[in-house]
Amino acid sequence: LEAALSELKAKADAGELDFNASSEEDIHSFVEAALIEKLGDIGRKLHTGRSRNDQVALDVRMYLKAETHAIMEGLLSLQKVLVEKAHENLDVVMPGYTHLQRAQPVLFAHHLMAYYEMFKRDFERFEDSLKRTDVMPLGSAALAGTTFPLNREYTRELLGFAKVSDNSMDSVSDRDFAMEFISHATICMVHLSRFSEELVLWSSSEFAFITISDAFTTGSSIMPQKKNPDVAELVRGKTGRVVGNLMAMITLMKSLPLAYNRDMQEDKEPLFDMVNTLKACVDIYTRMLPNIAVNVPAMRNAAEKGFLNATDLADYLVVRGMPFREAHSVSGKAVAFALGRKKELHQLTLEDFKTFSQLNEGDIFDFLSTEQMISRRVTHGGTGYENVKLAVEKAREYLNS
Amino acid sequence: LEAALSELKAKADAGELDFNASSEEDIHSFVEAALIEKLGDIGRKLHTGRSRNDQVALDVRMYLKAETHAIMEGLLSLQKVLVEKAHENLDVVMPGYTHLQRAQPVLFAHHLMAYYEMFKRDFERFEDSLKRTDVMPLGSAALAGTTFPLNREYTRELLGFAKVSDNSMDSVSDRDFAMEFISHATICMVHLSRFSEELVLWSSSEFAFITISDAFTTGSSIMPQKKNPDVAELVRGKTGRVVGNLMAMITLMKSLPLAYNRDMQEDKEPLFDMVNTLKACVDIYTRMLPNIAVNVPAMRNAAEKGFLNATDLADYLVVRGMPFREAHSVSGKAVAFALGRKKELHQLTLEDFKTFSQLNEGDIFDFLSTEQMISRRVTHGGTGYENVKLAVEKAREYLNS
Amino acid sequence: LEAALSELKAKADAGELDFNASSEEDIHSFVEAALIEKLGDIGRKLHTGRSRNDQVALDVRMYLKAETHAIMEGLLSLQKVLVEKAHENLDVVMPGYTHLQRAQPVLFAHHLMAYYEMFKRDFERFEDSLKRTDVMPLGSAALAGTTFPLNREYTRELLGFAKVSDNSMDSVSDRDFAMEFISHATICMVHLSRFSEELVLWSSSEFAFITISDAFTTGSSIMPQKKNPDVAELVRGKTGRVVGNLMAMITLMKSLPLAYNRDMQEDKEPLFDMVNTLKACVDIYTRMLPNIAVNVPAMRNAAEKGFLNATDLADYLVVRGMPFREAHSVSGKAVAFALGRKKELHQLTLEDFKTFSQLNEGDIFDFLSTEQMISRRVTHGGTGYENVKLAVEKAREYLNS
Amino acid sequence: LEAALSELKAKADAGELDFNASSEEDIHSFVEAALIEKLGDIGRKLHTGRSRNDQVALDVRMYLKAETHAIMEGLLSLQKVLVEKAHENLDVVMPGYTHLQRAQPVLFAHHLMAYYEMFKRDFERFEDSLKRTDVMPLGSAALAGTTFPLNREYTRELLGFAKVSDNSMDSVSDRDFAMEFISHATICMVHLSRFSEELVLWSSSEFAFITISDAFTTGSSIMPQKKNPDVAELVRGKTGRVVGNLMAMITLMKSLPLAYNRDMQEDKEPLFDMVNTLKACVDIYTRMLPNIAVNVPAMRNAAEKGFLNATDLADYLVVRGMPFREAHSVSGKAVAFALGRKKELHQLTLEDFKTFSQLNEGDIFDFLSTEQMISRRVTHGGTGYENVKLAVEKAREYLNS
Repeated sequence: LEAALSELKAKADAGELDFNASSEEDIHSFVEAALIEKLGDIGRKLHTGRSRNDQVALDVRMYLKAETHAIMEGLLSLQKVLVEKAHENLDVVMPGYTHLQRAQPVLFAHHLMAYYEMFKRDFERFEDSLKRTDVMPLGSAALAGTTFPLNREYTRELLGFAKVSDNSMDSVSDRDFAMEFISHATICMVHLSRFSEELVLWSSSEFAFITISDAFTTGSSIMPQKKNPDVAELVRGKTGRVVGNLMAMITLMKSLPLAYNRDMQEDKEPLFDMVNTLKACVDIYTRMLPNIAVNVPAMRNAAEKGFLNATDLADYLVVRGMPFREAHSVSGKAVAFALGRKKELHQLTLEDFKTFSQLNEGDIFDFLSTEQMISRRVTHGGTGYENVKLAVEKAREYLNS
Repeated sequence: LEAALSELKAKADAGELDFNASSEEDIHSFVEAALIEKLGDIGRKLHTGRSRNDQVALDVRMYLKAETHAIMEGLLSLQKVLVEKAHENLDVVMPGYTHLQRAQPVLFAHHLMAYYEMFKRDFERFEDSLKRTDVMPLGSAALAGTTFPLNREYTRELLGFAKVSDNSMDSVSDRDFAMEFISHATICMVHLSRFSEELVLWSSSEFAFITISDAFTTGSSIMPQKKNPDVAELVRGKTGRVVGNLMAMITLMKSLPLAYNRDMQEDKEPLFDMVNTLKACVDIYTRMLPNIAVNVPAMRNAAEKGFLNATDLADYLVVRGMPFREAHSVSGKAVAFALGRKKELHQLTLEDFKTFSQLNEGDIFDFLSTEQMISRRVTHGGTGYENVKLAVEKAREYLNS
Repeated sequence: LEAALSELKAKADAGELDFNASSEEDIHSFVEAALIEKLGDIGRKLHTGRSRNDQVALDVRMYLKAETHAIMEGLLSLQKVLVEKAHENLDVVMPGYTHLQRAQPVLFAHHLMAYYEMFKRDFERFEDSLKRTDVMPLGSAALAGTTFPLNREYTRELLGFAKVSDNSMDSVSDRDFAMEFISHATICMVHLSRFSEELVLWSSSEFAFITISDAFTTGSSIMPQKKNPDVAELVRGKTGRVVGNLMAMITLMKSLPLAYNRDMQEDKEPLFDMVNTLKACVDIYTRMLPNIAVNVPAMRNAAEKGFLNATDLADYLVVRGMPFREAHSVSGKAVAFALGRKKELHQLTLEDFKTFSQLNEGDIFDFLSTEQMISRRVTHGGTGYENVKLAVEKAREYLNS
Repeated sequence: LEAALSELKAKADAGELDFNASSEEDIHSFVEAALIEKLGDIGRKLHTGRSRNDQVALDVRMYLKAETHAIMEGLLSLQKVLVEKAHENLDVVMPGYTHLQRAQPVLFAHHLMAYYEMFKRDFERFEDSLKRTDVMPLGSAALAGTTFPLNREYTRELLGFAKVSDNSMDSVSDRDFAMEFISHATICMVHLSRFSEELVLWSSSEFAFITISDAFTTGSSIMPQKKNPDVAELVRGKTGRVVGNLMAMITLMKSLPLAYNRDMQEDKEPLFDMVNTLKACVDIYTRMLPNIAVNVPAMRNAAEKGFLNATDLADYLVVRGMPFREAHSVSGKAVAFALGRKKELHQLTLEDFKTFSQLNEGDIFDFLSTEQMISRRVTHGGTGYENVKLAVEKAREYLNS
């Protein structure tokens, strides 16, 4: 039987089997028919002690295990290009935004490393979910277990699973592993949708922070300056199908009585589409990121306009003993004053600063410079140059190990 | 400052603070205002080195950590009553279903233990997600980190978190922990919806397998025999709101640029509702399950009608040397024959059996008895008496440790 | 140009064009290239005054118009078989359920006509949505309208649309018609999922109300009595993908700025899948329904057990002057009394009835008979024989007109 | 009975009834108990010929009818301020975007009128759905109709419904009207989310197209220049809860057998939340829009940079006889040439233009001016001045009638 199966597999690999042309109900009966044709009664023994129900559960788990590993590899590759991009741009300053309003200057590398963190959690989530996918259901038969003295532990070993399932009814009716995978994949796609939104923004004339290379944009022969960020838009759009797959899976499982129900056949398409979509999106981002040119002066310029040093003026006063809430209010007055004169804070004179508080001294100008603002954010996790450099180095080490 | 905060907390615990009556924007400014009123400038220092953005992230994480632990406790309690119910019904036989068609006899305890497995996975999922919730964001300030030399490690220790966050922008814009929690909670509710569907079915006149006690059903003064399984229906219905919360959370996060956006304020309601709904559903199931009376004869009777021993007749022939596929076909003929005579297989004569195959002998009747069918499913995970007893014992030990 | 286009269409219809083998970006440029090859400069004039953006909007609308009409046809066919089934079973009594508990006897035809009503609303919804699909966007060009003096009214007439769109930016960024169609299709699938759930229940051994013919079930050679209601299960399961498509569509459109964005390319798959799924499900139900055999005695038998006449006992007393709430309470006592004696209400004696209320007379037995209970529900919309017959006749007339 | 009910209503209106303090199960039994207390046996007759099932269906329909009308009113108000805003800005030019890349100049009023079209469709959808909400279910009783000779037509008239329901089982199990309303409300919220996204973009320093007044933004005392577009963000975020409500409603109805099931009690919260959320969002937009200041020079300036006249250069050549595809290519070369010299097309010399094509003449400069580009888009639906003015006038007339 084993020899015949190997032979069959060789034929299949060589493309010599035409399953589609067959009249068999599914791949399982196709294989059995082929074996019966070749071996007669021995082929008829193939299905002993098993059922389509546990076979399907096995197949989907084997598939998902392999694909989850592939996606985790993909995430590592994506993180690598992210970290390299951060490494190349360790000194590049950009505005940090809240409410899409410029708030404080940050390092572009720091911004990129936020996505590194997100994908790291995605990786961990997939790793966690594998524990529940890596369970061998064979031997559960239709639903009640088999009457043949199968050594499930031996099957498990041969198939390379971490453990065998403990309850036959659960084994054939469980699709948790699919729901969990799709949930985690959706969270990962939400991250990609946020990144995509930013790439689209940064590619606009208004931001002009980056230029995505031609291979990942579509231009127009009539408007050669136009580079539509199609890849980013498509990935963002694909969040829709991914959310759709999640809903499909949950809706289909809702309220199904035990054990197997034919509804569950509908689990394949959302799962396969999810795997394919996520793999493709992670892959294209991995290929696109190195091909994004950073417009350093534009980022820098944006970071220096819009009173991004207002918080630091307050901090300056706090360090000199003023209570925070009062310093906060003084800084507000300074900004209002500057705004009225169409100046930035660092364009005011020391006299101006003195009128807001006598605590202000000549070192205020250095203090409010973008460099010093960045440098001062030394607390762990902050955008300080040293911090970010360290974070990038740590990430590189981790990814190379 | 610390003393004043403790005092404030004491007042709050005693219900002497009326936040709603205050004109403050939120609880953070309410507390600050109270401290300033009491302490003056010292109160004005409260907000040093922090921002609403990292405070909110902290608060939600503290809340969710506590609630996740509470839900995990709840799941353990639910598993306990499930296992006790299984323990009390170790010998009760019922039909196992596929496609809602009777397929093979199983132990009622085995069926219950399938849900034990599901809730066990739910527990593990919540445990895994805690790793990503148990991260301390304070010190990330608005988005870029703080300029004050905060010892975040010390804050972490005081607040009892496992680790500090590594990137300030990620810290204030991350809601993964909420999406992950809600995803896992949804899977758990899918399990409860399946259980509910079964309880509703089993409570019908047609099945009549169980009677849920009055406290968990609503009757009607006009139809005292009627016991509507309202609790099961409501829990099943609440799967809707839970899926809704999942969608709300994902939709709101889709495509948000970094870092904080006001949209994220909408994360609270779905998260809170999810926690409350899941806790309530797990709790009421824990209270209801012991109050379900099992109609043992009805279950047994159903298990003995409908040719649930057809597979075993095939197995009988296989053990005696017939290839499975042939035995399968012989069994089919026997069923068709019996069906024509309005009999069950075990009501045929030995002569009848002989006409299908000479391999059939007098021991076929014992072989096809429900007891022996159950007993023979000895492979790990199967519904065999010893298997199930062992599984229940193992679960009891695990739950008590 | 026109002649060349006709020739091209003829070739395409004859399968002589291989779009896939071409290097053109999409079908629009493929056609243009073919025309240029044939006509030179005249072909290069094809794209005058239009853009891919308005062309795509046009194509999707033309597709959806045709498919919506096809689905509406399908719904009419489904309603016809429903109504015929009702017509054939005008006298068949079954239990009406609430909470899956037997409540009051109803006509099987009345139950079927409830689905007729649902599909009628679905039809109307599709009809309404057509008003917003049947709008001609061509002439909107990329987003701002065209500089060429196109006669959009004439184009509309040629293409058979009801009206032209009024705002060019809206025309290329609007996918309301797709969202609306998918929403309505989802509601229709919810109806089919409810019907499916009932067919699955009714096919079970426990209900045994119907037998679905072999063509729409899968049996098992080993268990020829087993008829898995696979079609009903699959349709129920497909509710998942349909809900998924709805979510995909909404998620993708959320927060997109005007006008066209590449994300919108992802609208095709959910829309096409929705159309194909709904058409297939409506079609298979139309073919399956006539092939469902009704087990009249089983339905009848179920309708006569479980005190389904308790409400009518109360009504009997009300008619004789007792306030409803009191009659309700008397009936409850009678049921409790009968329940204690393991009898149905109509198996009690007149003496028994008299002990509950002196208003009870000898005609109570006829009054509580299933026939009279049905007959009495004469108010419009009720399950009375005449009512249902009339409703069926009215529906037949409507469907034939 | 009627007098007592009126009295009860008066008390309720005066706030003298405390339903919460009562031990009654719901508002229906509360009312009945009050009537019995007052009228004795007459009160006990209240519930004759009806059931909680049809009463609940009635109440929800009455509620939704009123609220749908209120929302439609709200949409008209929103359209009015939109149209007024357009009217005030009939000459304001801004860049039209595709892929968030500047494409062609459009009128700001034209852009606003795109939203007018969307809300107009929303209005029509609600109007259509009302036809299916405005159906009177009373008289369907529990599920089978009533045995009392109720005049349902008279009830309908009294309650102001358009028609009575035709099938009692459908009447108590139908929640289509809620699903349909929520679907349409979701589409409306998608429109608001798109508008919100644009307001957030336009409020950024990078676009700087608009300034939303303080009442609808939150500033920061420390950064008085900062105006976070909180309202727009919150409305965009609320798309999440709205999608959640849609999913809740659909998930809960999926696979429910007829007729009433307790799951359906869960329909209230998503429906109520949907109504309240949509009303609030439409209302705040109506109040916010007039308080948005338009930065005319910034819009204009943006419209004149980025080769937004490239398409028109091609059109210029087409008008002079060049085939479109060739003109397209010539225009591309001109843009590339200008890009290399860091100029816009209209900053090139006639000699430059002549090198691309001899068809170019001195009138090319006027032709490529923003004014002429706008003016030329005269085809119905285009952004031409006259077109837009007409569209605005037509809309004003429609809204005032």
